[in-house]
Amino acid sequence: MKAYIIAVGKELLTGRVLDTNSNYIAKRLNGIGFRVAAIKVIDDEQDDIASALKESGKAKPRVLLFTGGLGPTPDDLTLRGIAKGLGKKLVKSAKALKFIKRRYEELYSEGMVDSPELNEFRAKMGLLPEGSRILDNHVGTAPGVHMREAGVNIFALPGVPAEMREMLEIEVMPRLEKIGGGRNRVEESIMVPCGDESVISGAIRKIGAAVPGVFIKPDPAGFYGSGTMKVYFSSYGPRERVEEAIKLMMNEFSKGKKTGGV
Amino acid sequence: MKAYIIAVGKELLTGRVLDTNSNYIAKRLNGIGFRVAAIKVIDDEQDDIASALKESGKAKPRVLLFTGGLGPTPDDLTLRGIAKGLGKKLVKSAKALKFIKRRYEELYSEGMVDSPELNEFRAKMGLLPEGSRILDNHVGTAPGVHMREAGVNIFALPGVPAEMREMLEIEVMPRLEKIGGGRNRVEESIMVPCGDESVISGAIRKIGAAVPGVFIKPDPAGFYGSGTMKVYFSSYGPRERVEEAIKLMMNEFSKGKKTGGV
Repeated sequence: MKAYIIAVGKELLTGRVLDTNSNYIAKRLNGIGFRVAAIKVIDDEQDDIASALKESGKAKPRVLLFTGGLGPTPDDLTLRGIAKGLGKKLVKSAKALKFIKRRYEELYSEGMVDSPELNEFRAKMGLLPEGSRILDNHVGTAPGVHMREAGVNIFALPGVPAEMREMLEIEVMPRLEKIGGGRNRVEESIMVPCGDESVISGAIRKIGAAVPGVFIKPDPAGFYGSGTMKVYFSSYGPRERVEEAIKLMMNEFSKGKKTGGV
Repeated sequence: MKAYIIAVGKELLTGRVLDTNSNYIAKRLNGIGFRVAAIKVIDDEQDDIASALKESGKAKPRVLLFTGGLGPTPDDLTLRGIAKGLGKKLVKSAKALKFIKRRYEELYSEGMVDSPELNEFRAKMGLLPEGSRILDNHVGTAPGVHMREAGVNIFALPGVPAEMREMLEIEVMPRLEKIGGGRNRVEESIMVPCGDESVISGAIRKIGAAVPGVFIKPDPAGFYGSGTMKVYFSSYGPRERVEEAIKLMMNEFSKGKKTGGV
């Protein structure tokens, strides 16, 4: 099952903030068998959000997960963009407003904010695309959104990492586990006694042909001169295929054949 | 001038590796006046690379910068994907082959590799889309690529961070400075004595109307209860506009008006 991650926020495009959310989400989705087909980082612009939704939707992913842009400030436009991309109206959600009111009452009682009232900016977070269900935010105040459109599960999560993570773990993961990623990705790595990618390449091609469906990728960062390289083996097939590929790779380099079978 | 960054690599989509390259590149491009309109992270698949190129090309960016997938191993498909996206052939580049040969001879003389010869995997890195010029790699062995197609400057850089950074700084930045980003982005931040985004929102809207062209964005991470929040002001206009907006924001919160003008 394919999944797309779309991170919304100008601060990610200027480089002021490093996008760690997409990496966190990608790990969790892969962990339950989804294939993250692409990650997109886009601007806080309604049209960019709408276009990203439409573009990604063409690939018919099972999951389209937005992060960022749900807050009360004028630059927070993710739900507006999703509504535009789907040709839907933004509507006041009674459930969302009730949730937001409760959260501000809680924050007020803890002395975190100066008023428990739903001002217009707080109320803005309760405007959701038609057909949305809300996801509780256990850290902040903006509710998340889940909706299903033409087989695509659209999720919108906050961008503040602590809020995103809590909502992902508590609200989204159980839903995704029910949907099911459909594949069990296995990844293993070994150290190969060869520091030269252009030599390991021969072994990769040979083993790739012998054990199809196993993706073999060396990690070339900083290994020149060390005489060793880490090589990753991954597959959506049974674990035995990965183990078979690893065995073949170890054979290549244990025979004293430094050329990796070229 | 618009720029797109496309990072290629399955390890970024599985979450095994955090994409720090795009952030580094985004900072540098913004620093010389380019607007990074989107960052895309895609798989090591020829078709995905070709599609990303075509999709991004529609927006007529001045710069389209790929990172990752230039190495000798079978999964390194970026140049193949770019060629497919442009409807061009991959051709043996004499200059690239000469560069690769020289780099392996250097590595051999330093005892880093076991042979100085151009085996078929090393030679693969010399297959470039027609019309490419090469960019020197001062750290690794894969040459980078620069080409201009219909007004779009396409760059392909390695994915290993140390190689990417050196090539960006030495080979790409001088070219980009000559092209010119066209805009001077100014960003300043202040601490506002209010920890509630839904209150600051009123001031943002008011100031946004008074000083158009200034993008105002609070950083809502972890500020509840602290009674303060960092607010960023950015603009492509003259610095005076940013300073004017900051002055207005400080006025809002210095009058004891905790409501931020709502």
